[in-house]
Amino acid sequence: MSGINRLAHMTTVEARAAADRGTIVVLPVGALEQHGAGLPLGTDLIRAEALVERVASELPDLVVVGPSVPVGVSPHHTAFAGTMTLRPATFILVLREYLDALAAHGWRRFLVVTGHGGNNAALGVLAQELMHERPDLELAWAPVTALAPQAVADMDRSEVTGHSGEAETAQMMHVAPDLVRTDQLAPGTTTLDQLDPLSRLARRTAPPTLAVPYDRLSASGVLGDPRHATAEDGRAIFDEAARALADHLKEWADT
Amino acid sequence: MSGINRLAHMTTVEARAAADRGTIVVLPVGALEQHGAGLPLGTDLIRAEALVERVASELPDLVVVGPSVPVGVSPHHTAFAGTMTLRPATFILVLREYLDALAAHGWRRFLVVTGHGGNNAALGVLAQELMHERPDLELAWAPVTALAPQAVADMDRSEVTGHSGEAETAQMMHVAPDLVRTDQLAPGTTTLDQLDPLSRLARRTAPPTLAVPYDRLSASGVLGDPRHATAEDGRAIFDEAARALADHLKEWADT
Amino acid sequence: MSGINRLAHMTTVEARAAADRGTIVVLPVGALEQHGAGLPLGTDLIRAEALVERVASELPDLVVVGPSVPVGVSPHHTAFAGTMTLRPATFILVLREYLDALAAHGWRRFLVVTGHGGNNAALGVLAQELMHERPDLELAWAPVTALAPQAVADMDRSEVTGHSGEAETAQMMHVAPDLVRTDQLAPGTTTLDQLDPLSRLARRTAPPTLAVPYDRLSASGVLGDPRHATAEDGRAIFDEAARALADHLKEWADT
Amino acid sequence: MSGINRLAHMTTVEARAAADRGTIVVLPVGALEQHGAGLPLGTDLIRAEALVERVASELPDLVVVGPSVPVGVSPHHTAFAGTMTLRPATFILVLREYLDALAAHGWRRFLVVTGHGGNNAALGVLAQELMHERPDLELAWAPVTALAPQAVADMDRSEVTGHSGEAETAQMMHVAPDLVRTDQLAPGTTTLDQLDPLSRLARRTAPPTLAVPYDRLSASGVLGDPRHATAEDGRAIFDEAARALADHLKEWADT
Amino acid sequence: MSGINRLAHMTTVEARAAADRGTIVVLPVGALEQHGAGLPLGTDLIRAEALVERVASELPDLVVVGPSVPVGVSPHHTAFAGTMTLRPATFILVLREYLDALAAHGWRRFLVVTGHGGNNAALGVLAQELMHERPDLELAWAPVTALAPQAVADMDRSEVTGHSGEAETAQMMHVAPDLVRTDQLAPGTTTLDQLDPLSRLARRTAPPTLAVPYDRLSASGVLGDPRHATAEDGRAIFDEAARALADHLKEWADT
Amino acid sequence: MSGINRLAHMTTVEARAAADRGTIVVLPVGALEQHGAGLPLGTDLIRAEALVERVASELPDLVVVGPSVPVGVSPHHTAFAGTMTLRPATFILVLREYLDALAAHGWRRFLVVTGHGGNNAALGVLAQELMHERPDLELAWAPVTALAPQAVADMDRSEVTGHSGEAETAQMMHVAPDLVRTDQLAPGTTTLDQLDPLSRLARRTAPPTLAVPYDRLSASGVLGDPRHATAEDGRAIFDEAARALADHLKEWADT
Repeated sequence: MSGINRLAHMTTVEARAAADRGTIVVLPVGALEQHGAGLPLGTDLIRAEALVERVASELPDLVVVGPSVPVGVSPHHTAFAGTMTLRPATFILVLREYLDALAAHGWRRFLVVTGHGGNNAALGVLAQELMHERPDLELAWAPVTALAPQAVADMDRSEVTGHSGEAETAQMMHVAPDLVRTDQLAPGTTTLDQLDPLSRLARRTAPPTLAVPYDRLSASGVLGDPRHATAEDGRAIFDEAARALADHLKEWADT
Repeated sequence: MSGINRLAHMTTVEARAAADRGTIVVLPVGALEQHGAGLPLGTDLIRAEALVERVASELPDLVVVGPSVPVGVSPHHTAFAGTMTLRPATFILVLREYLDALAAHGWRRFLVVTGHGGNNAALGVLAQELMHERPDLELAWAPVTALAPQAVADMDRSEVTGHSGEAETAQMMHVAPDLVRTDQLAPGTTTLDQLDPLSRLARRTAPPTLAVPYDRLSASGVLGDPRHATAEDGRAIFDEAARALADHLKEWADT
Repeated sequence: MSGINRLAHMTTVEARAAADRGTIVVLPVGALEQHGAGLPLGTDLIRAEALVERVASELPDLVVVGPSVPVGVSPHHTAFAGTMTLRPATFILVLREYLDALAAHGWRRFLVVTGHGGNNAALGVLAQELMHERPDLELAWAPVTALAPQAVADMDRSEVTGHSGEAETAQMMHVAPDLVRTDQLAPGTTTLDQLDPLSRLARRTAPPTLAVPYDRLSASGVLGDPRHATAEDGRAIFDEAARALADHLKEWADT
Repeated sequence: MSGINRLAHMTTVEARAAADRGTIVVLPVGALEQHGAGLPLGTDLIRAEALVERVASELPDLVVVGPSVPVGVSPHHTAFAGTMTLRPATFILVLREYLDALAAHGWRRFLVVTGHGGNNAALGVLAQELMHERPDLELAWAPVTALAPQAVADMDRSEVTGHSGEAETAQMMHVAPDLVRTDQLAPGTTTLDQLDPLSRLARRTAPPTLAVPYDRLSASGVLGDPRHATAEDGRAIFDEAARALADHLKEWADT
Repeated sequence: MSGINRLAHMTTVEARAAADRGTIVVLPVGALEQHGAGLPLGTDLIRAEALVERVASELPDLVVVGPSVPVGVSPHHTAFAGTMTLRPATFILVLREYLDALAAHGWRRFLVVTGHGGNNAALGVLAQELMHERPDLELAWAPVTALAPQAVADMDRSEVTGHSGEAETAQMMHVAPDLVRTDQLAPGTTTLDQLDPLSRLARRTAPPTLAVPYDRLSASGVLGDPRHATAEDGRAIFDEAARALADHLKEWADT
Repeated sequence: MSGINRLAHMTTVEARAAADRGTIVVLPVGALEQHGAGLPLGTDLIRAEALVERVASELPDLVVVGPSVPVGVSPHHTAFAGTMTLRPATFILVLREYLDALAAHGWRRFLVVTGHGGNNAALGVLAQELMHERPDLELAWAPVTALAPQAVADMDRSEVTGHSGEAETAQMMHVAPDLVRTDQLAPGTTTLDQLDPLSRLARRTAPPTLAVPYDRLSASGVLGDPRHATAEDGRAIFDEAARALADHLKEWADT
């Protein structure tokens, strides 16, 4: 990423000015985890950074881009080589210390954009910790793909879909086409009857919630058929997500 | 609660037998937090225990009821007197040690039934911790009200509704009518235009997620109009929730 | 337990009033651990709650009953099925956060009544932590049986006695007779010569103190002969304990 | 301290031999806390080390003297200058890591001799932690003065007595007379009617237990009248304590 | 950074192959801290990543580049806006979990390249932790500038020099000239007599070591005169550092 | 150690006076680790205490000697019997609580003298923690041998030297000759070609730093030839170190 409102590229003098004018710090958060044979391990951070950079460039006076968190909470993917994970408590601690450090210079509002839905529970806990100990701070967070429900619904997707599937592959085709191994894209688990009974129970959206590891859900780590993805789909997801994020930031800044 | 399959009422000899026959341990979890002027602080545990007791009595051979967790994660309610809260990490730790202790005797499956939705993020983190450190255990969890989406949708509810509102009051009228101060039931925040801009942003269901404390959402701590609740509504919610829970437990036991 | 001065049954409005009038919060603490073939795993909490409820009903203006802690520090009983334990640090943390939460609403005095003597060391450490970090709070604690030394001394007891023995069984016959498996009551270790040398050393009351697990002290987990217990003995213990507790609370309130 | 069986004075070769022959490691533990105007801050470790050295010299083949812990758990004395304290959890952690390190070389039995009764609760918790996580280790512990109940009972003591009082001063006159400021010895609190009501409640030996800081119990930090102490009394205490300790160690070694 | 041997750009299939052939994982570690008015806050990570990328591209079969750690241990710079810091324990924990995650896939050797000397103590502690708990792993670490002592010695430097001074500015002119605010480069503290007595004591290289915060050492946060730096100097430093690192990696791989 | 300015030997009244006159607290820190067949396990604390006592007796008005820390960070020596180690985090915590306790009475300046270089990283981390959380305190630290570079350079030493080698043995001959097993002194690893390739890489002084355990560096745990040491050398080291320490303390006191 580049750009004038990236904190790592500012001097201390410029950071002082940015904090003083009440900017919102946006933190891109990823995972470094398996994405099948076709997508790179860094897929989630790559998408989060691309989205953040786009929104930040549209709102240069409103937003400062803070440091990335490249490794997230991925215990359900550790059976696949290269997957790294932080314990949830460590992930929360790192973000907490980021926020404390930034708050010491006067920042009060923070938005985490996560490319990895597996970070959601930990982000919710972080928000509760802050409410207890730092009620003066405001924290919002969003997973990338969930910001574009319409564009995703418009895609041609399998009965079972999700991780490394149609929507995620499309986004990578849009933002980092060189990193997509097109010839390695192959369908993973695509129908419910390919799942064992416990996995089927775990995929149900109604509560109770029950989690199973991804090597049980899919031998290749893929849910869905990534061959159906197109860069066009990815652009549509990013357009919708960027608009949702920018609208939220502007509305927040006005409160 | 009472009943033969409540762990605290079993002897060690009976516990040995229950673990050996592969029972699922169900743990009722609550909050001890403000529920307005009309409902008691213990509302969430009272509902969770009532639901668990009902399901456990229907499935005596399948289920063992473990110890309750009476205090949950409630930092967003601490402005109201009597609210108690555990830090999320402490709440997770207690449940983790419960599971470790039970697993040492051979239990492998656990279901947490929480009367308080504010525990969800912490329960999600607990599940991730287990996946990392105890992949041999299976954990499911469900908030009470979310188990009965149809019965709740059928109720007459305000534009803004939720905590201590129509659905929660109805459940208490059904399971603990003596503890409902009927004459103290009064509408809290019921329409979006009663909220300040930040709170309105926080109530939006689309991401980004943004949390604000309940004293900002409602002066009385109530969202919705509890006067519209009836014991009949409460019974419908419990019927639907009990059925959903029992079906899930039976299906799980068969995997 | 029930009763108007139970915190979980109060509304936030009532809790505000109770804190404002300077009440003492009493917390019943148990263990969920083996009590031989004749008594239930929850014996210690059942006795603690029964005693607390009795004293609280006698002192309605002075006392508020806080949430129970159902699982205590029981590593010495884990060889027996169903026994659950918290690590001492976790047990301390839970009580500490209970006290912090209550202190945030204005409560300053707390009494822990524990049915399990194995919690004593952890409670002593908690008191020291508070003295260091919260010198404004006052904490007292008492094990149930130790509150009635005279009634216990008057009973017919074995040379070796204690856990699940005469005094504890008598209390359960008094407060929860339906949960006593009378036909399963059987003598455990009753004389010193039944112990191995290390266990004999550990049972000596003079220092040094040396702890051994209960499966080494007794194959059934019982010390003493519970067949000698009567509900009359249990009533005498409860009368003496309730009087001691009430006197202490009244004297404390006057300081 | 000196002596051939002090671990710090052994070489690694000698330590190997000592561990191989099944010695018990004895750890002297102190406090660094106020002892009035007449006794030094290090009084508790000085007494513990003196007693340990004496017993170790009597049992050279049975005992190895491990490193001392000079600072204990003393939050109740911090109002007096020079008092140092560890949080109980830190004190426990240090001893735990001492034991883990020694156990890695084969030692299995440990005796802590503490000059400070305020360490007792933390030592009890340590024993419970070990029972949970290192059931292969055996831990015993004893406070110095409590090892000599007869000699203490034979002394001329005030109605209120204890910290820096007759018995403790006598021991220092016996083992470290040069460090006793004889001309500064003065009575502290000696009668119950000198105490405020809460302190009087706290001094009662019957439960509930209630702790108050020492600056509330005595302006000088002294309980009792140290002018009544003699070196003869101190010798009697040490004779009785050393005999009790040696007997226990020999009996233990035979189990 | 880019390149085929960057872990985030590999698929799980490629990661499996890289781990299997015994590669060394190199982790670039930075700080996000003030570097005066002329250099960006991210200077340390920018230099570390540039050096790592160069060495990795020279040794494609030997090295895998792991995720960066953008925020380091910088408590001595927090008086300057924009500086972020992790507590040392958190910094250590993050790296420890990175290593644990990678070791789970078979990697055994790790090299941390830190652009920030302030991370050295924490890295030393990490190495000791590993020696205790993961003696099967090998960890090496190096600060960037210290890898090129000759090139630094050849530069024209002030009596007081170091942070944001000649050598660091030269490196940034070489690897990221667009981020150097040439017109803002200004001398900071350049002579010992500009320091107060405590700071002078702290700058002495002989022990005892004594640390003071940077706002006490220099009002602008700069030590030395960055105007004397040239891109040529930076290239010389990078040439020497890259050679030292590559030689070390090759020699290590041969052991 | 003895002496009027040893905190453990002061009364609380004297401690009050010492803190009020702005003394610096000096803390002797050791290790309890293997020192070959010729030196005792406590070598590092013995040397640190001897040096501290000497300097303290020269500067009675400036310095107070605090409690010793007998066990340090020694994971690289645990293969040798008798070696004890604290985890680095525990070692840091103990010193941190020492400083917090002393700071509560008004002390502001602290000097740690460590006989064990392996504590350096942990001491550096402690200093960073303090800078973050207690910027009002000043901490300095020094390893004993590093205080006397000239005297050490003047000695006759092997190509490989260090732990339990010439310089350390000489110091013990000077301060504790009775504890040196002269007949057991024997050369350990003395030349680089006796090392395996990884160990050779680890002994290089240029970065990267790479640590290996001492049982890999030397079968006896000794680096160098302790037979070349003399008490004269030890005296020269102590003279130089004591002078450096005293000069530093006086200069510090004047800032």
